[in-house]
Amino acid sequence: MINKIKETRLLHGGDYNPDQWLDYPEILKDDVRLMKLSKTNTFTLGIFAWSALEPKEGEFQFEWLDEVFSNIQEIGGKVILATPSGARPAWLSNKYPEVLRTTENRMKMHHGGRHNHCFSAPIYREKVGIINRKLAERYGNHPALLMWHISNEYGGDCHCELCQENFRSWLQTKYANLENVNKAWWGPFWSHTYSDWSQIESPSSIGENAVHGLNLDWKRFVTAQTIDFYQQEIVPLREMTPDIPITTNFMADTHDLIPFQSLNYSEFAKHVDIVSWDCYPAWHNDWEETQDLAVKVGFINDLYRSLKKQPFLIMECTPSGVNWHDVNKAKRPGMHLLSSMQFIAHGSDSVLYFQWRKSRGSSEKFHGAVVDHDNSEHNRVFKDVANVGDALEKIAEVKNSMKHAKVAILYDWENNWALNDAQGFSNQTKQYPQTLQKHYKSFWKKDISVDIVTPEQDLSQYSLVIAPMLYMMPEEMMKKLREYVEAGGTLVSSYISGLVNETDLTYLSGWPKDLQAIFGIDVKETDTLYPKDRNAIVFKDKVYEVRDYCSIFENKQAQALANYEMDFYKGQPAVVKNQLGKGTAYYIGARTEQAFLDDFYDELIKQLSVGENMGILHEEGVSIQIRESEDDKYYFVMNFTERVQKIKAVNEYIDLLSERVLAGEAFMKPYEVFVLKMKK
Amino acid sequence: MINKIKETRLLHGGDYNPDQWLDYPEILKDDVRLMKLSKTNTFTLGIFAWSALEPKEGEFQFEWLDEVFSNIQEIGGKVILATPSGARPAWLSNKYPEVLRTTENRMKMHHGGRHNHCFSAPIYREKVGIINRKLAERYGNHPALLMWHISNEYGGDCHCELCQENFRSWLQTKYANLENVNKAWWGPFWSHTYSDWSQIESPSSIGENAVHGLNLDWKRFVTAQTIDFYQQEIVPLREMTPDIPITTNFMADTHDLIPFQSLNYSEFAKHVDIVSWDCYPAWHNDWEETQDLAVKVGFINDLYRSLKKQPFLIMECTPSGVNWHDVNKAKRPGMHLLSSMQFIAHGSDSVLYFQWRKSRGSSEKFHGAVVDHDNSEHNRVFKDVANVGDALEKIAEVKNSMKHAKVAILYDWENNWALNDAQGFSNQTKQYPQTLQKHYKSFWKKDISVDIVTPEQDLSQYSLVIAPMLYMMPEEMMKKLREYVEAGGTLVSSYISGLVNETDLTYLSGWPKDLQAIFGIDVKETDTLYPKDRNAIVFKDKVYEVRDYCSIFENKQAQALANYEMDFYKGQPAVVKNQLGKGTAYYIGARTEQAFLDDFYDELIKQLSVGENMGILHEEGVSIQIRESEDDKYYFVMNFTERVQKIKAVNEYIDLLSERVLAGEAFMKPYEVFVLKMKK
Amino acid sequence: MINKIKETRLLHGGDYNPDQWLDYPEILKDDVRLMKLSKTNTFTLGIFAWSALEPKEGEFQFEWLDEVFSNIQEIGGKVILATPSGARPAWLSNKYPEVLRTTENRMKMHHGGRHNHCFSAPIYREKVGIINRKLAERYGNHPALLMWHISNEYGGDCHCELCQENFRSWLQTKYANLENVNKAWWGPFWSHTYSDWSQIESPSSIGENAVHGLNLDWKRFVTAQTIDFYQQEIVPLREMTPDIPITTNFMADTHDLIPFQSLNYSEFAKHVDIVSWDCYPAWHNDWEETQDLAVKVGFINDLYRSLKKQPFLIMECTPSGVNWHDVNKAKRPGMHLLSSMQFIAHGSDSVLYFQWRKSRGSSEKFHGAVVDHDNSEHNRVFKDVANVGDALEKIAEVKNSMKHAKVAILYDWENNWALNDAQGFSNQTKQYPQTLQKHYKSFWKKDISVDIVTPEQDLSQYSLVIAPMLYMMPEEMMKKLREYVEAGGTLVSSYISGLVNETDLTYLSGWPKDLQAIFGIDVKETDTLYPKDRNAIVFKDKVYEVRDYCSIFENKQAQALANYEMDFYKGQPAVVKNQLGKGTAYYIGARTEQAFLDDFYDELIKQLSVGENMGILHEEGVSIQIRESEDDKYYFVMNFTERVQKIKAVNEYIDLLSERVLAGEAFMKPYEVFVLKMKK
Repeated sequence: MINKIKETRLLHGGDYNPDQWLDYPEILKDDVRLMKLSKTNTFTLGIFAWSALEPKEGEFQFEWLDEVFSNIQEIGGKVILATPSGARPAWLSNKYPEVLRTTENRMKMHHGGRHNHCFSAPIYREKVGIINRKLAERYGNHPALLMWHISNEYGGDCHCELCQENFRSWLQTKYANLENVNKAWWGPFWSHTYSDWSQIESPSSIGENAVHGLNLDWKRFVTAQTIDFYQQEIVPLREMTPDIPITTNFMADTHDLIPFQSLNYSEFAKHVDIVSWDCYPAWHNDWEETQDLAVKVGFINDLYRSLKKQPFLIMECTPSGVNWHDVNKAKRPGMHLLSSMQFIAHGSDSVLYFQWRKSRGSSEKFHGAVVDHDNSEHNRVFKDVANVGDALEKIAEVKNSMKHAKVAILYDWENNWALNDAQGFSNQTKQYPQTLQKHYKSFWKKDISVDIVTPEQDLSQYSLVIAPMLYMMPEEMMKKLREYVEAGGTLVSSYISGLVNETDLTYLSGWPKDLQAIFGIDVKETDTLYPKDRNAIVFKDKVYEVRDYCSIFENKQAQALANYEMDFYKGQPAVVKNQLGKGTAYYIGARTEQAFLDDFYDELIKQLSVGENMGILHEEGVSIQIRESEDDKYYFVMNFTERVQKIKAVNEYIDLLSERVLAGEAFMKPYEVFVLKMKK
Repeated sequence: MINKIKETRLLHGGDYNPDQWLDYPEILKDDVRLMKLSKTNTFTLGIFAWSALEPKEGEFQFEWLDEVFSNIQEIGGKVILATPSGARPAWLSNKYPEVLRTTENRMKMHHGGRHNHCFSAPIYREKVGIINRKLAERYGNHPALLMWHISNEYGGDCHCELCQENFRSWLQTKYANLENVNKAWWGPFWSHTYSDWSQIESPSSIGENAVHGLNLDWKRFVTAQTIDFYQQEIVPLREMTPDIPITTNFMADTHDLIPFQSLNYSEFAKHVDIVSWDCYPAWHNDWEETQDLAVKVGFINDLYRSLKKQPFLIMECTPSGVNWHDVNKAKRPGMHLLSSMQFIAHGSDSVLYFQWRKSRGSSEKFHGAVVDHDNSEHNRVFKDVANVGDALEKIAEVKNSMKHAKVAILYDWENNWALNDAQGFSNQTKQYPQTLQKHYKSFWKKDISVDIVTPEQDLSQYSLVIAPMLYMMPEEMMKKLREYVEAGGTLVSSYISGLVNETDLTYLSGWPKDLQAIFGIDVKETDTLYPKDRNAIVFKDKVYEVRDYCSIFENKQAQALANYEMDFYKGQPAVVKNQLGKGTAYYIGARTEQAFLDDFYDELIKQLSVGENMGILHEEGVSIQIRESEDDKYYFVMNFTERVQKIKAVNEYIDLLSERVLAGEAFMKPYEVFVLKMKK
Repeated sequence: MINKIKETRLLHGGDYNPDQWLDYPEILKDDVRLMKLSKTNTFTLGIFAWSALEPKEGEFQFEWLDEVFSNIQEIGGKVILATPSGARPAWLSNKYPEVLRTTENRMKMHHGGRHNHCFSAPIYREKVGIINRKLAERYGNHPALLMWHISNEYGGDCHCELCQENFRSWLQTKYANLENVNKAWWGPFWSHTYSDWSQIESPSSIGENAVHGLNLDWKRFVTAQTIDFYQQEIVPLREMTPDIPITTNFMADTHDLIPFQSLNYSEFAKHVDIVSWDCYPAWHNDWEETQDLAVKVGFINDLYRSLKKQPFLIMECTPSGVNWHDVNKAKRPGMHLLSSMQFIAHGSDSVLYFQWRKSRGSSEKFHGAVVDHDNSEHNRVFKDVANVGDALEKIAEVKNSMKHAKVAILYDWENNWALNDAQGFSNQTKQYPQTLQKHYKSFWKKDISVDIVTPEQDLSQYSLVIAPMLYMMPEEMMKKLREYVEAGGTLVSSYISGLVNETDLTYLSGWPKDLQAIFGIDVKETDTLYPKDRNAIVFKDKVYEVRDYCSIFENKQAQALANYEMDFYKGQPAVVKNQLGKGTAYYIGARTEQAFLDDFYDELIKQLSVGENMGILHEEGVSIQIRESEDDKYYFVMNFTERVQKIKAVNEYIDLLSERVLAGEAFMKPYEVFVLKMKK
C-alpha cells in the first residue's frame, strides 16, 4: 500500500477530457493558459478515452495524450491517469457482445451509456488488461504521473450466465455444500430448498427476490466480483509502476448523501491505496437549511476518511451546479470556497472537479466546470475556482495532517442491505444511514471530531461508540461490543438492534444474551408507528416527541433514564443506562426528535470529556472542524448560514486565509470560512 | 358437499411449518408444549412442504410428517392438511420449465417465489396429482385429519402458449363460432374482427388490452381454469377420503379489504365444501377510525359467509401485525380478542392464524405468529392468543349457529371487473366495492344483520335488496329484480346501473325498459364530477353533500324524494321512489355523503321492520352482531372505539366471556367485547 | 396543393362508422334520419374499416360502403374518406408479423390496439397501397367525395431492424460520413465514437438514450419516416383524384393542450393540402378557470392555422365529454356552442366530431357522440349539436375568411425536443410550450390576433415577433432575427435562448455575437431556482414575482427596464431593451408572473399599434376574435366565464346568430357568444 501521494501541494484541478477537443487545437492551447490562471495543479486524464486511444481493435493512438502530458508537465502540473474501462468503444460491444450486461429481468442490454460492462466476461478483462498495460508502459515513468484512477464510479451488476456461474462458485467457496446454503437461507421456507447448484440464480423480479439470504449474498458477491475485476485491472500497473498509488472514485446515494449502497466500500477500501470520492451536495436547496446539509457532507466525508484513517481525496465535485439534480442551481458567492474548505476540514487533501471544461455536446454539457463554454477566465465560476486555488496554496501545510476523534459512530454496509431488504417495520421509515446522520449532528453542532467506523475496525481507542439500528449483528460483533464496554468504553445503541445474524436468520430464545448483559434489558417488542402516530418520552423533566419506532423492553438491571408518555407502554422505560464491567451502555428505545439526541449526548460529552476546548464561542450554524499535524492544530471555522455570525475567540489565532490575527470578537459573513492555526 | 366439520370445538390454531425446523428437534418439542398452553386445537400442515416431502423427484419423505401428526393427535389436536402445489421444489422447475408462468408481456418467468405455476401445464397437474394421492393414502384415515386445504391463496394467470390454447377452447365452447365472438366483443371497432381462432390472444400491454369483451372473458377463463386446476387437485382426495371436507383459502384486496378481484369467488365457492379465507385488516392505522375499518371487516365476512350461507372459517389472521403492510403495527391490548370475536360474530367457526411460529429466515420471518422468536409463552402476543383460546372455549356453543338477515346487498364480481375496465366516468372514483361498504355501514351502525349476496342467489327471502352501481346488468338480472319488486320486495339501486349486458355491450334505445318500469324513471346522463366539484341534494329539508357522480333522469312516474341543489340540473330529482306491483323501488341518483344513506335507510328500516329489538342501547362505535342457534341467540357486543362506552341493557343477559349477568347500565372498556346469550 | 374544399357550407358532422352496425339495419336507417335532424353535412368514413373492406386477404367488400355513400349523397351530405391504415385486420398481422412494431426496449409487439404498425415494413406499404387504390378507383369520382383523410392520428415509432436500417440510410444522406456524425453528436464523450454505421442504433432505455444528437436525429427521422409513409399512401390518390384535397388529422398533447410533440407538424403540414386536427379541451375542470383553458385552445388553433396560413379544419372534437380524460365531464349548457364558435373564430371551417354515434362495445363506447346509445334526437347533446348546426348555417359566410395578425409568436418543434432532452436546468419547469401560452395570453386578453409561426416562416410582415426560450438556435435563425430587427421589427426573447446549434452542440466563446448585437447584452449565467425559491423584479415601480429561471447578464449597450430585487444579482438588469438598426429588441431575463407580461406587452401594443379598435368594451373573461373576408369583418365575442358579462358596443353590429342588432350596452349570459358582422 502506498498511502501518500508524491506531491506537497493540496491537489486542485480535476477531470480533463482533451480527447473531446482534438479537432479544436485553439481550445487545447487555451486549456494550458487557463490552467495557470485558475491555480490548478492536477488533472485526471483518459477516463472515457478508450475510443480515442484505441479507435480500432489493436490500433493504438497515444500521440495526443503524450502532448497533453507534456503540456501539463510544462506548467508544473500532475496527472492522475485513468484506465478507460468505464466506457468502451462501439466496436468492442459489437464484436464481443458478451461484454454487455444482462439486466435483473434477464434482458440483454445494447451498446450505449457507460459503467455497464459485465464484470465476468473474460474478453473484457483481456481487452482492459491490454490497454492498461499499454498505458503503464508509456506513462509509468512519466514525471507528471501522480496516481492511477481505475475505471470510473464502479457500480451495478450483471445477471448473464457467466455471472451466474461465478456467483455459484463464490457460494461454493463460502458454504462448501448446498446443505449449508439451505440452512443459511432458511431453504424450506416456501419450498426453496436447493438440490443442485445449478438451481441457484441471482435475484430477479421475474424469479426469486424475497429470499433475504440470497439477496444478501448476491450483494456481497457483486462487491467481491467488482473488486476482483478491479484487481485484475491493476495487475499491469502494480507490476510496472509499483510506486504509483492507485485509487478508484467512490460515490454517495440520494439527496441525503448517504453512503453509496450498491458496493461495500468497507471491503473495497482495503484494495485501494488512497480513498477518493465524488461529492455532490445540493447546496441552496429548498427543503433543508444549509447547516443541515453541511452535517450530511461532514458525516460521509468522515466515513470515507475513516475507511483508511488517512487523508482522502475529493476526486470530483462541482465549482457551480451539476446537471443531474432535479434542480441544478449554481453555488451562491462564497459557497464554493466554504464547501471546498469543508472537504479539507474533514480530511481531504484535494479539491478536484468534475470537470475542467464543459463539453460541447451530449448529456453532461451543462454540468458545472472550471471553464465554461465561453472559454473565459472572467466569469464568476472561474474566479471562484482561482480563489479556491489561492486558498489551497495558503493552507498547503495542512496536507497530510489528520483528525483525531474520541467518538466513533458505527456504519455497517451489510446491515443497511439487510435492514432495507427486511420485510417488516415500515419501509418508508427505516432510514438507517439518515438516523446515523442525526446522531452525528449532535456532535457536529458542538465541534467534536467523530470517526465513522466500520465493523472490522478497532473500537478500543474511543471513549464513546455509537452503534444504533444494528438490525443485523453477528455474534462476534456482540462480543466485540461487550468487550469494549467491559473494558471501560461507553456504548450507545438503539431500537431495531440485534435481531438477525450474518445470514439474516433471527436469533432464537429472545434478545441475545450478550446484548441483555450489555444493556441490562430484554427487548420484547418493536412497535412500528404510522406516519401520523406520535408518542413522547420524558427525559430530565423535558418532553420529547417520538415517532416511527418504539422498543418495548423488560428492564432487568438497567437504570431508566426516560419513560414513554403514551400508548399501552406508557410509563415503561424508553431509554436506559447500564453498567457492565468498567463501562457503561445506553439503549435508546425510541426514535426521538433531534433535541433529545442533543441533550442526551450533551451529558455524555461532558462526562466523557470528548469535546475539545478550542476557545472559540459561536452560535448554531457555525461549525469548527480540526486537523492536526505533529506540531499544529488547524481550526476550520465555517459559517453555514445566510447571516452574519458573531464569534468570540478566547485565544489568539492566525487565519491562514486572510493572513490576519483573530482575537476577541469577530464577525463572519454568510458562508465565510477561517482557517485558524494554533501551535499545539 | 360436506358442509360440516367433524369437530365440536371452535377451531383455534393455524399454519404450522415444522418442515422448516427439522434440524431443531428442541423447537419441535417446544411446539407441543406451547400448543397446549395457547389453547389451540387445529394446525394446518404442509402448505409449502413439497421440498420436504419430495426432496428429489419420486423420492418421498413422510416420516417427519407422521411424527407431527402423532404429536398433534396426542394433545387432542386436529390437522388441516394442505396440498403443496402453492410452491414447488427447484428440481421441478428446472426439469420441467413449462410449469413456469409467462407474464402478460410474454416474458417467461424463472423459478422463485410462490403461487406462480402455470394452471395448464400437464406435467404440473401430473406431479401435483401424484403427491396429493400420496398424502391421501398416508393420512386419509388418520384420526387427526379434519380437513383438506388445497394449495394456497390461488391467484394470478399465465399467458403461455398452452394457456392461449386453453383460452381458445374455452371460447369455442362458449361462443361456438367466431362470428359470435366478433358480435359479443364488438369486433369491427378498430378493425378487431377475428377471422381465425389462432388470432385470439390473451390481453397484453404489448398487444391488445382495450377490448373489454376480451378482457372480461379472459378474467372468466382465469377463474374457470383455476377451478379446473383445483378440481384436478381434489380427484384423489375425493376418491380416498370422501368424508373429509375440502377448502381453499380465499383473500381480500387493498387496504379497504374489498373482495379479492382476480378470481370470481362466487363461482369458486360452489366447488369447496366450506369457505375459508385470510383476513388481515390494518388495525390502528392513521387514515380511518377503528369503527370504519370494523365496518369493512364486517362487510367482507358477511359476503364470504353468504357465499354458501353457512358458517365459514377464518383460515388465516394475525395475532399481532403482519410484515407486508406499509406499516406493520402490532395490535393494541384488547384488539386481538375483539377482532377474533368479530370473526365469530359474522359467522366464522374458527380463529386460525398465519402462523403458529415465526420462521427464522426469509421474507415472512417478522409476520406475526403465536410463537415469537423468543420461543416463549410469556410475551404479550402469546398471552393474547391463549386468552382468545379461552374465550373460544367459553363460547363453543355458538358453533354451527347462523345469522339471519332480512336485508341483502348485492355484490357482483363480474360487474366489478367490467366497471373497472370501462373507459369512461373517472377511474379514481368508480369504487364499486367501497360504495357497497358505505351502504352496508348504515345497517352496521344499527346492528342489523345483512347478507351480501351474489347474482345467482335467491332474493325472495329478503325484505330489502340493495344493488347499487350494477353497471353490467344482464337482462335476466333485470327480470329477476323486476320480479322481486313486483312480488312485494323493496329494492334500492343507484347511478351507473344497467348500462351494459354480459359481454359489455351497451343497451340500445335508452335505459332498459325493465329498469324504467322498476324505478319509474328514464336515466338520461351520468354527470362525472372532478374531485373538487360538489353538488348537493335536499332530502326531508336537510342538505347532503354530493360528489363524483350525478345521474340526470326524466321522471316518468316516480315520486321525487330529493332534488339537486346546483348545476344545470338544479331542481331535478336525484332520489326517487316507485311502486311496482306489490313492491317499491328506490333509485339514488347521486353519490352522497354517508349521512344521507344513514337517514335514507333509517326510514326504510322502520317501514320494513328489518331491525331487531335486542334491548341494548349504545352509542356510535359499538356494534352488535347476532348468531342464532335453534334455541338461543348470541349477541356479540363490540366496542370498536378507544373510549369507555356506556350501554344500557333492557333485558337480562349472560355474558359468556365474563360469565356474569348483564342488566341495566354497563360500561365497556376500549375494545371490550361481550358475548350475550338469550333464550329465544 | 389544393387549398380549398369544394363545399360552400361550414363542415358539420364527423367520424361515422357504419361498419360497426352492419348487423343492425334499423340503426343504419336511423342514422340517415338523425343526420338530417342534427343539421350535419359531412361524414368521415372508413377510418378503421379495413376488416370490413377486406375481411380476408385479397377479398374486398365495398357494397356496404357504396350504400352509405349513396345515403349520404341523398341527403346532400359529403364524405371525407379515410384510408384504413390506422388499424389492420388480424389476418395481416398474423401472416406478416413484420408489420408489428418493435418497442424501444426491443420487444416485438403482438397484434392489437391501433396506430402501431411499422412505417418501414414493405409489405405493409404494399397492402396499404392496394386498398387505397381500390378506394380511389371506386369512390374517386363519387360526387359526395369531398376529401381524403389519410390514416388516423399518425404517431409513435418502431425500432425493428428495418427501421434501424432506414435510420442509418437517413443519417448517411444527412451526414455523408461517420466523421461528421461523430462531430455532430460529440462522439468522443463517453467513448461514443462510431467506427461503423452498423454500430448506430435508435435510442433505447436498454442501450443508449443520453446522446442528445442521436435522440434529436431519431425524432427527425421518425417525422421523416412518417411523412414518407404518408406520401406513399397518397400516391394512388393523387394519381386518380388529383382534385380531391388530402389531409391527415393532427393532435395535441397533455392537459395543457400543447402541440403534439412526437411529430414535427411544421414539416408534415407541407405535405397536406389542408391542416386538420383533433381538439379535446377538458372544459369545466377543477384546476383552472374556463378562460385560462380558452387561451390554450386559442393558442394551438392559431398555431395550426398558421402552419399553412389558411383556414383549417377541426376534424375531431366532442359534443359532450370524452372517455379518456381522468375525469370525463360533459359540457355544460352553452359550452358546446361557445367552444364550437371558438374553433371558427380562430380559423376553422368546420366543427366535426369524433363521433357520429357511440359504439356499442369496446373501449370508446362512452366517448361523447352526436347520437347516444338511446338513438334519440331528444337528449341534451343531440339538441346542442343541432343548435351548432343551425349556428354554422347562419354564419356560413365566414367560410374561407382569414385572420390577419401583426403579432407573431414563434414555436419551434425541434427546440422543444432539444430543450426537453437537455440534462440541465430543471425538468419540472422547462415548459417551453406553456411559456408561449403565457405570452400569448397577454394578447388574447386584449383581443389581438396572433399568428403562431414556425422557424421557416417569413417574419417581415409582423410588427412584433415574440420568440422566447429558443434554447436551440441555429445560426441562420440568429441571422434571420437580426435582419428582422435591423429592418425595423420589434423582437422579444427570453432566458434560455441561443445555447446550442442544430445538433445540440453549445456555442463556444460565450453567447453568440449575433444575439449580443440584437439584445445589447452578454448572457453570463442562467440561475435555476428550486420550486419554493422566489425572486422579484421591479418594472415601472411595480414589483413582480419571479420563479424558476433568472438570466444573469452583462449589459453592454442595452437599456435596463427592470432589475432583480434579490439574491446575489440584486440590482442587476432582468429586462432590457436594445436598438439595432431600425428596430428594437427586448430580452426578458426572468420567468415572471403573468401580470408582468400583461403590463410589459401593454406598452408594446400601444407603441406598435398592433391592437385593433373594434369598438367593443368588455371585462376580463370575454374574448373577441376576428375573421376577415374581402368585404367584411366578423367579431366573435365570447364569454368564457360562468357569470353574466356586460359589454359596451360603440358601433352598431349585426349578430349573425341571434339576427339582432347589437349597440350600446348588452349583456352576455355565461358561455354566450355573439358573431358580429361589420362592413370593412
